Amino acid sequence: MIHVFDNAFLFNPCTGEWLLTSFSVENGIVAAIGANHSLTGDQITDLGGSRVIPGLIDTHLHIESTFLVPQEFGRVALAHGVTTAIADPHEIANVAGTAGIDFMLQDALCAPNDIFFMLPSCVPATAEDVGGAVLTAADLAKYSDNPRVLGLGEMMNFPGVLADDPEVLTKLSLFSHVDGHAPGLIGTDLCRYAAHGIKTDHECTSAEEAREKLRCGMYILLREGEAARDVDALSSIVDASTVSRCCFCTDDRHVDTLVREGSIDHCIRTAIAAGMPENLALRMATLSAAECFGLTDRGVIAPGRVADFCILADTEIFTIQKVYKNGIPADEIPVSAKQTPYQVPPFSCRFPTQTDLSLPENSIARVIGIIPGELVTENIPARPDADGVQKLLSVDRYHAGGFAIGLVKGFGMQTGAVASSIAHDAHNIIATGKTDEEILTAIRAVADAGGGLAVVTGKEITLLSLPIGGLMTYEPADSLLRGLDTLSAHLKRTGACRQTFGHLSFLSLTVIPHLKLTPRGLFDVDAFETVPLFH
Amino acid sequence: MIHVFDNAFLFNPCTGEWLLTSFSVENGIVAAIGANHSLTGDQITDLGGSRVIPGLIDTHLHIESTFLVPQEFGRVALAHGVTTAIADPHEIANVAGTAGIDFMLQDALCAPNDIFFMLPSCVPATAEDVGGAVLTAADLAKYSDNPRVLGLGEMMNFPGVLADDPEVLTKLSLFSHVDGHAPGLIGTDLCRYAAHGIKTDHECTSAEEAREKLRCGMYILLREGEAARDVDALSSIVDASTVSRCCFCTDDRHVDTLVREGSIDHCIRTAIAAGMPENLALRMATLSAAECFGLTDRGVIAPGRVADFCILADTEIFTIQKVYKNGIPADEIPVSAKQTPYQVPPFSCRFPTQTDLSLPENSIARVIGIIPGELVTENIPARPDADGVQKLLSVDRYHAGGFAIGLVKGFGMQTGAVASSIAHDAHNIIATGKTDEEILTAIRAVADAGGGLAVVTGKEITLLSLPIGGLMTYEPADSLLRGLDTLSAHLKRTGACRQTFGHLSFLSLTVIPHLKLTPRGLFDVDAFETVPLFH
Repeated sequence: MIHVFDNAFLFNPCTGEWLLTSFSVENGIVAAIGANHSLTGDQITDLGGSRVIPGLIDTHLHIESTFLVPQEFGRVALAHGVTTAIADPHEIANVAGTAGIDFMLQDALCAPNDIFFMLPSCVPATAEDVGGAVLTAADLAKYSDNPRVLGLGEMMNFPGVLADDPEVLTKLSLFSHVDGHAPGLIGTDLCRYAAHGIKTDHECTSAEEAREKLRCGMYILLREGEAARDVDALSSIVDASTVSRCCFCTDDRHVDTLVREGSIDHCIRTAIAAGMPENLALRMATLSAAECFGLTDRGVIAPGRVADFCILADTEIFTIQKVYKNGIPADEIPVSAKQTPYQVPPFSCRFPTQTDLSLPENSIARVIGIIPGELVTENIPARPDADGVQKLLSVDRYHAGGFAIGLVKGFGMQTGAVASSIAHDAHNIIATGKTDEEILTAIRAVADAGGGLAVVTGKEITLLSLPIGGLMTYEPADSLLRGLDTLSAHLKRTGACRQTFGHLSFLSLTVIPHLKLTPRGLFDVDAFETVPLFH
Repeated sequence: MIHVFDNAFLFNPCTGEWLLTSFSVENGIVAAIGANHSLTGDQITDLGGSRVIPGLIDTHLHIESTFLVPQEFGRVALAHGVTTAIADPHEIANVAGTAGIDFMLQDALCAPNDIFFMLPSCVPATAEDVGGAVLTAADLAKYSDNPRVLGLGEMMNFPGVLADDPEVLTKLSLFSHVDGHAPGLIGTDLCRYAAHGIKTDHECTSAEEAREKLRCGMYILLREGEAARDVDALSSIVDASTVSRCCFCTDDRHVDTLVREGSIDHCIRTAIAAGMPENLALRMATLSAAECFGLTDRGVIAPGRVADFCILADTEIFTIQKVYKNGIPADEIPVSAKQTPYQVPPFSCRFPTQTDLSLPENSIARVIGIIPGELVTENIPARPDADGVQKLLSVDRYHAGGFAIGLVKGFGMQTGAVASSIAHDAHNIIATGKTDEEILTAIRAVADAGGGLAVVTGKEITLLSLPIGGLMTYEPADSLLRGLDTLSAHLKRTGACRQTFGHLSFLSLTVIPHLKLTPRGLFDVDAFETVPLFH
C-alpha cells in the first residue's frame, strides 16, 4: 500500500529548503519525494499546503524523570512531535542494575515512537552512594550488540576520565559513541576529557563554554530540562557553521512539564523566542540529531528514511498540529495492551523507631540549608529546635541496613511529613517532616507501596505510588497528573514549598555541594567525607 | 613527547572560525587546543601566524588510475595535503579479484597517509565482460570486519538495484555505508535507488541533478577527476545549508594530473575559482568528508583527533605549503622500503597470427568512431581500407582464450601501433595500429611484460611496464612520469592523437554507448548484444 501525501510544504534539512512537495510512504518508509502531485499511490492525503517537518529527535533524556514507563512517555512525547528519543536509564539502573535496563529496553518496544538507549556509565555515581547496583564495564559490554543501544551514556565521572581510571577507560572503549557530562569543564581539562572521544555535552550553561566545547569537536546538546534551562543562554552559538554540530535535549523533564510545556517542540519555541532562525532550530531537532547519533535512517523526509513527520499548525508560534510515525497518524496508533513486568525484589528497609529519632536539643548541628530553586545546599550551624529546622531521614531501601538522621531548613512545613523514593542517584527513601510519627508513617507508606511519593498529616496519607523501582508508574500520564495534583493539594496543607519533592530528590546527591544526607550519614561534599550531625 | 604548535591561524570546521591558536600533539594525536601560547610541551614550533587547516580527505578514487601503487600514491597525494584517501580498488579487482584487493590493502599499510577502502561492488561490470574475476557478496563479506574497509564501493549497477537483483541486494545489506554511482538518475528511479540507503553520489554533472540527490538525502561528492570535471558546474549547490552534505573526490586522476595539478587541493582551487567561499570548500574537504564516512577521529584539529594538518602558503591562490601527518612533517616521513609482492598468474593469451587478422577489403564494416574527448563512440559504416580506419584488437589475457578484431577511426595514426593492458573494466589487452605486424608486436610486448603500455614503429618498441595487474608500477612517480614522457614522444611520431591511450582504455567498456570491442567480439551497447564486424 503506497500512501501519497500531496501539497506538503516540506522542510528539507539537507538543503534548508521549504518546497511544495509530494512524498509517498510504503510500509512505514518514505518511498519517494517529488514535485507536488507528481507521485501515484493507493491512497492520497492532501495536506493542503501545510508546513511539514521531519519527526523531532530528543537526543538525551532520562525517561524515569517523567515518572512514566517508556511506552507511556513515548505516547506523550510523540504527541509533541518526538518520533525518536534517546534515553539514558541511569535512574532505574541505580536502583535495579541490568534488570532495570532490561525493563526499559523491553517496555520501550511497546512505545509508539522509537526509543534508543545510551548505557548508564556511572552507576553508582560515587563510591559514597548506597545504591541498588554497581554496573561494571563487563555488565555494559553485554548490551553492545543490542540494536537499540547507541553507545555509552553521559560520562559524569570526569575526574575518573582525567585520572585515567582503568574501569572508566574500559567503559569508554566499549562504544564508539560516548555522551559527555562536563559542566563548566574548560581549558586543558576539557581537552583531556574530549580527547577520549567523548562526543557530546549537554551541561553547558554559557555560550562561551559551549563554543569552547564545539571547538574541541564536541556536539552540543542544548538542554531545556526541568530545572536547568539552557536554550536561551546557548542559542547564540547556533549559526550556519555550527548548526550541524548542535542538537536539543530535554534531560529530566517531569510529566507535568512534558505534557503542559512540551518536549523538543518546546525547545524549538524557546530557541526561536531567543532569536534563533527557525530553519536552524529545525535542522538541530532533526538531521543534526540523526547525524550525531549515526541514525542514518531518519532526520529527513527522503527515500528510505522512516516516514516520521509533523504537520505544523498555521500559527505564529511554532506548534505541532499532527504527528505521523512510520506514516501513521500518532492518534491512530493503538495504545499497547502489554504491561512489562518489573521483577525486582521489593524494598528491604530496617525502619527507624521513634527512639532512633530522638536528638539532643541543645547541641549545635550541621543543618542542610535549602536554597530555593538551587540544587546546591548550605551548611548552617543551628540547634535542632531552631525555627524552621526539621528532621531529614535517609533510609537504605536495598540492604535492610542503615538509615541516617539529619536536619534541614527551608521547606517551610508547618505540619505533617513527606517521603519519597526518588533521591538521586541511589534512590533510597528520603523523608522530612514536623513530627517523628508522621515522618515514620510517610516512610512506611512509601516502602509498603514499593516506592512513591507520600504526604502525611496526622493519620491522613496521600500516596502517589511509583511501583517500578520507586521511580515510575504504569499509570497513563493523565491519571498520573491527577495523582500529582491530589498530592500537591495535600502538600499545600502542610505549608511546605511547592518544590518540596524536587528539592528532596537532590538531598542525597553527593556530587553537588555542600551538605547532603545518605543512609550512611551526613556528607560534606566539599571535604568529600561523612561528618557528624553535631559539632 | 608533547609537541606544541604556537601561532597557528587555525581553521576550525566545527565552528567555521579562523583563530590564532596553539595546539599540542602527542603520539600523533592532538592532545589539546587553546589560546595562542597557552600550552606547554617538550618541543615548540612557531608557525608564525600561518594559516593552518585540517588534513584534506579524498572521498573517492581509484588508485589504479594513477598507475602508482598505494604507498606511492599516498606519498604524492600527501604532498598535496591529502592525509586521508578513500579508495575503491575496482580496477585491480576486475583483474585479480580478492588477490588484487589484498594487494591494495597490504600495500596501503606502507603509505605515509591513511588509505581506507570501499569494496568494489560491481565486478564484473556486466556479464559481457571477459575479466579476471567475479566478486560475489560472499567474497566481499570476508572484508566486513577489516578496520580499513569503510563500506561498499560505488554501486554502478543501478538497473540491478532498481530490479531488486538478489545478489545486488545481498551486497547492499553487507555494509551500512554504500557509495553510489548514478549518472543522470533522477525522479522516481533516483528515489528507488536512494531508498536502498545508498549514501553518496559522485557522478552528478549538473547543479540541478546534484540538488535533487541532496534532497533525497544523499551526500554529493563533487568530482574533479581526469576527464570528468564537475566542480565548476556543481559549486553553486554548496551553501551554508548543504555544505555538511558535500565533499570532494578525484575519482580517476592519472599520475601526471595528480602531480602537476594536484588532488583535493586542486578541487578547492577549482571551487574557489568557481565562486565558492573558501570556508565552505575547506569544510567540505575536511569535516564533511569525515562525517560522511564516519571517520570520527579526524576532520578537525581538536583533542583526540589525528594530528593531520596543512600549512597554507601566504599566496592569493590556495596552496598547500607544508603537510603534517600524525604530527610529523610529510617530507620527514621515510619512504617505505617494503615492496608488496603481487602474486597473481602472468598473462595467459592466445595470440592472433597475421592470418587471423586478414579481413575482406570490400565489405562494409561497423567501425568504431572515436569522438575526441568523449567516452561515447560512434558506429560508422565504412570499409576496412577507408581513410583513417585501422584495425583494433581485443585479446583475452586471462584464459588463453579468445580475441576479437574490430575497426576504429579517429586515432589519426600515420604509422606504427599501440597496445595497452588498461581497458575498462576487464583490462584485457587492447591494441590498434597501421600494420598487422606492428599491432602483434605491441600486443606481445605488453603481454611479455605482464602488462603495460607499448608504442611500436617498425622494430622499435617503447614499453611502459605496468607489472601489477597490468595497471600499476612499483616505480616512483617521478620516474613513471619520465617513462610516460618517453612513451608520449614515441607516440607523437606515429601521428596518433595525444589521448590515444585514454581513448583506447574505454573501447572495451560495454556500459557506455555505442560500439565497443571485447575479446568476444564487437558489442553494440544500445542493443546490448554482440554484432558481426561486417554488415
